[in-house]
Amino acid sequence: MQSFNPPIRTLMGPGPSDVHPRVLQAMARPTIGHLDPYFIEMMDQTKQALKYAFKTQNELTMPVSAPGSAGMETCFANLVEPGDKVIVCINGVFGNRMKENVIRFGGEAIVVEDKWGEAITIEKVEQALKENPDTKILAFVHAETSTGAQSDAKALCALADQYGCLNIVDAVTSLAGTELRVDDWGIDAIYSGTQKCMSAPPGLSPISFSKRAIQKLSNRKIPVTSWFLDLNLVMGYWGKGTKRAYHHTAPVNTLYGLHESLVMLMEEGIENSWARHKQQHETLKLSLEAMGIKFLVKERDRLPQLNTVWIPEGADDALVRSTLLNEYNLEIGAGLGDLAGKVWRIGLMGHSARNENVLLATAALKEVLSR
Amino acid sequence: MQSFNPPIRTLMGPGPSDVHPRVLQAMARPTIGHLDPYFIEMMDQTKQALKYAFKTQNELTMPVSAPGSAGMETCFANLVEPGDKVIVCINGVFGNRMKENVIRFGGEAIVVEDKWGEAITIEKVEQALKENPDTKILAFVHAETSTGAQSDAKALCALADQYGCLNIVDAVTSLAGTELRVDDWGIDAIYSGTQKCMSAPPGLSPISFSKRAIQKLSNRKIPVTSWFLDLNLVMGYWGKGTKRAYHHTAPVNTLYGLHESLVMLMEEGIENSWARHKQQHETLKLSLEAMGIKFLVKERDRLPQLNTVWIPEGADDALVRSTLLNEYNLEIGAGLGDLAGKVWRIGLMGHSARNENVLLATAALKEVLSR
Repeated sequence: MQSFNPPIRTLMGPGPSDVHPRVLQAMARPTIGHLDPYFIEMMDQTKQALKYAFKTQNELTMPVSAPGSAGMETCFANLVEPGDKVIVCINGVFGNRMKENVIRFGGEAIVVEDKWGEAITIEKVEQALKENPDTKILAFVHAETSTGAQSDAKALCALADQYGCLNIVDAVTSLAGTELRVDDWGIDAIYSGTQKCMSAPPGLSPISFSKRAIQKLSNRKIPVTSWFLDLNLVMGYWGKGTKRAYHHTAPVNTLYGLHESLVMLMEEGIENSWARHKQQHETLKLSLEAMGIKFLVKERDRLPQLNTVWIPEGADDALVRSTLLNEYNLEIGAGLGDLAGKVWRIGLMGHSARNENVLLATAALKEVLSR
Repeated sequence: MQSFNPPIRTLMGPGPSDVHPRVLQAMARPTIGHLDPYFIEMMDQTKQALKYAFKTQNELTMPVSAPGSAGMETCFANLVEPGDKVIVCINGVFGNRMKENVIRFGGEAIVVEDKWGEAITIEKVEQALKENPDTKILAFVHAETSTGAQSDAKALCALADQYGCLNIVDAVTSLAGTELRVDDWGIDAIYSGTQKCMSAPPGLSPISFSKRAIQKLSNRKIPVTSWFLDLNLVMGYWGKGTKRAYHHTAPVNTLYGLHESLVMLMEEGIENSWARHKQQHETLKLSLEAMGIKFLVKERDRLPQLNTVWIPEGADDALVRSTLLNEYNLEIGAGLGDLAGKVWRIGLMGHSARNENVLLATAALKEVLSR
């Protein structure tokens, strides 16, 4: 077995996205202890910067020491108690996973379905809330990575509030890529991933909990099933001041990477980051449409950072993708579920959302499709 | 907020330990997709090399995408079913955490206690097994990171087998640092961490499950509570061949680091790694004893890679540790629980187990203590 030297790819799938060399270099800095005063200072800065990225003042804002799926689980494990009724909106893979979480933690999942590729229909959710006045939580995906559809998180959170519910929001693909305002929109519990529009490697899941969410957590009748994800314990580790209770060993070097990506995000400005994703999407859209390629999601609900397009008639899905990968080192994503073999998912996330990437992707796709 | 440039420490606490520059450099290699054929090949190599490190042929051998605490939880979440009786040996912090896991997953914990700093008493465990013939699992810590005591994993597993139990073994601090033979000793479920004697950064937890353990997992009556750690799902992702079911996004760059540390382990040879830890321990022991410093654990049960010593009379615990850190960039560990303020934990783990580190630690300690 020899050292692994990966090929140099351009990552334009559904994530991970291209990681900036500054972030990669940060990962290689010398490991220090997770209780070292310098590490604790770095943790504090990371929390502050995540508040900036999420647009929140929530004290409980931090990265979970595991990928986005664990961030999702952190929200459901801590907030769903046995018997809780949870309305789950499903319009793609990740809504389904939320439902699975609700059930495993003993909740009752009320499903509101929309077609894959469409945004969540507000009226259907309101109907479900009316029919289930004892609902405790409304859970939905802001940016469905499986389809590229964006839902109206602001309206959904307002609706949940109107009916006396907490909300849980999946922002894995939206954070830093599209408008997201945790405090203004009244989001109670939110999780994201570092490997999408944050341009850091996968392995961490930023989360943020409102005071109302912490209140529900503090009033739980039985402990959180997961010891590792129990925020009552994790808060003692990521909490204020220099007196930290040991909980687990934080992934030190991965956190260096996230810290650097947050420094870069603050240099750019969060609104500028949203605008850049939008602008690159517009360029890509024009080029793809000029090639006769059509989008799955209607214009109003499209995520700029994840472009799901119908595979042109006659094109061999797997062959096109493997040719792009093998001959141009360009990764684009396949379809999932019923959309497998029918769509491609072209990501413009974080450091991947650049002029040169958009040019490369369209030119390479044009060349391969014309063979 | 500016880029974080950590101080250059020598890490001789209970972990994380010093990470070799080769491993740090590997972490900085360009991120590729977690479904890229090259990544899948790297995953396969990593699994093979972990089998080598664990001395096992277990097909289900892989790194969990989160720190050691999540590895512990993976074992308990998958193997403990509600009502299962589990004998948990407690002789330090991590035995306590095992008990907490058993309870949270609905099991009944039968506790066998030994004093902190002592090995687990085989006779007590046998007595508990006799008194509880319906016990399903025996759980214990091979190498207690909180005390530096090593227990006889071989004898404990043989005992479990004799009484028809499965076993769960915590090897967070033992893997690659002291003799450990998963197949020869009949270990059923084992978890470790990468940041101890593997000399990789924290963030991953290598695990291995025997066929018997997989059988219990497959026959579960209710699903595993955790979706993220459900091995029935994770196995589809880390499984054989190129057809992988997407489960979560693996921490790509952290896995580069683990892969490189495994390449280095194979270059050295696992037995040589055990011997190196032993040899460095012997040198450290002689030097410390010459300074009149005494060990907490009696010689027979001492872990070479974690040396817990009584703080000499008159020495100020916090002051000595902070002086070592601030003036010599040397980290040693504090005591935990009842041992806080009474002991230091001096780690000789992985890349930290080197002549130069032993010399530095003893010379610096001598200097600071003589002030």
